[in-house]
Amino acid sequence: MAIRYPNGKVYTPKKDQSIVKKKDYSFSNRGKTLEDEINDANEYYLTHGIAVIYKKPIPIQVVKVDYPSRSSAVIKEAYYRTASTTDFNGVYEGKYIDFEAKETENRTAFPLKNVHLHQVEHMRKVVKQHGICFLLVRFSAINRYFYLPFEHLGLFWDRMQTGGRKSIALSEFEEHAIEISPKYAPRIDYLEIVKNLSV
Amino acid sequence: MAIRYPNGKVYTPKKDQSIVKKKDYSFSNRGKTLEDEINDANEYYLTHGIAVIYKKPIPIQVVKVDYPSRSSAVIKEAYYRTASTTDFNGVYEGKYIDFEAKETENRTAFPLKNVHLHQVEHMRKVVKQHGICFLLVRFSAINRYFYLPFEHLGLFWDRMQTGGRKSIALSEFEEHAIEISPKYAPRIDYLEIVKNLSV
Repeated sequence: MAIRYPNGKVYTPKKDQSIVKKKDYSFSNRGKTLEDEINDANEYYLTHGIAVIYKKPIPIQVVKVDYPSRSSAVIKEAYYRTASTTDFNGVYEGKYIDFEAKETENRTAFPLKNVHLHQVEHMRKVVKQHGICFLLVRFSAINRYFYLPFEHLGLFWDRMQTGGRKSIALSEFEEHAIEISPKYAPRIDYLEIVKNLSV
Repeated sequence: MAIRYPNGKVYTPKKDQSIVKKKDYSFSNRGKTLEDEINDANEYYLTHGIAVIYKKPIPIQVVKVDYPSRSSAVIKEAYYRTASTTDFNGVYEGKYIDFEAKETENRTAFPLKNVHLHQVEHMRKVVKQHGICFLLVRFSAINRYFYLPFEHLGLFWDRMQTGGRKSIALSEFEEHAIEISPKYAPRIDYLEIVKNLSV
């Protein structure tokens, strides 16, 4: 049933961008990608002396380079390569941190096709070296974030490899992962989870 | 005086490539760059489950990309960016390892212009986080390798910043760094130094 003003006119909720923006200021990601949000957190950790964690550069295979002058080089042909490791790594209180960050629009499950075999293999090796290794997942449509320790990711991966489901259900995240509640600064404070898990 | 065969013919030592190769097999770098040698060591560590250490991809700023088909992307214009961190990092027995590798043709000193300010700043932050951080230097002309803990590199850097010499003398490496003697496999076993320093 339509909501009507006292004058009988039908009420239509306004899509006021400025209001949405204002509300978004401190608690939403304001259209940022998960990668942006993690870069923000890493910047916060770096400037506050909490940790030194960076996103690795994207691996690119350079094929042709022009040198218009002695001091400059212009790459004229190059190709993206598949990453053989994870996106982020660094150090937190002497400990090695290594993780991959992925977002999905799916509301009920995280499709494992977002993770590559060589990344899982890399993470297995890191865990064997006693590095701290995890997957950060953002369910963008429902605005929820999870920290899934590699131990669990590995099990879900193996389940798929042996014929099981090709995704991790949201309910499985609720059971095995640690949910990150966005806060003011840094918004996505994933090291808080590392800290609590290490205690 | 020339050496002669019994038949009177002058003996000329043969430059037999296969012999040179054989001799080079285990003790020389066979024209490899220091980066190649470290990648070899890292590969050895990885396959033997000793450590997980990688060279980071070279940072490239992509400006223009063509998509000739849905599945492929060709980068048509891109530029090399200056690295803001070091070249190598990874994990060894839970510990964070971070280092830069540089070679010089200079026989008596390592010019500090080979290291960038932001790299030194990055290394300072890593050391504050209790990461293991060092500079690997190859004096290529005399085939000597040194592991210089960041603590010393930082002091030499500060000396330069306060008007002192712009290089680190070979004799200073002999005094403050740990020399790496190439061995069979891996040839440049820098983790051996990390292990000994950690004890």
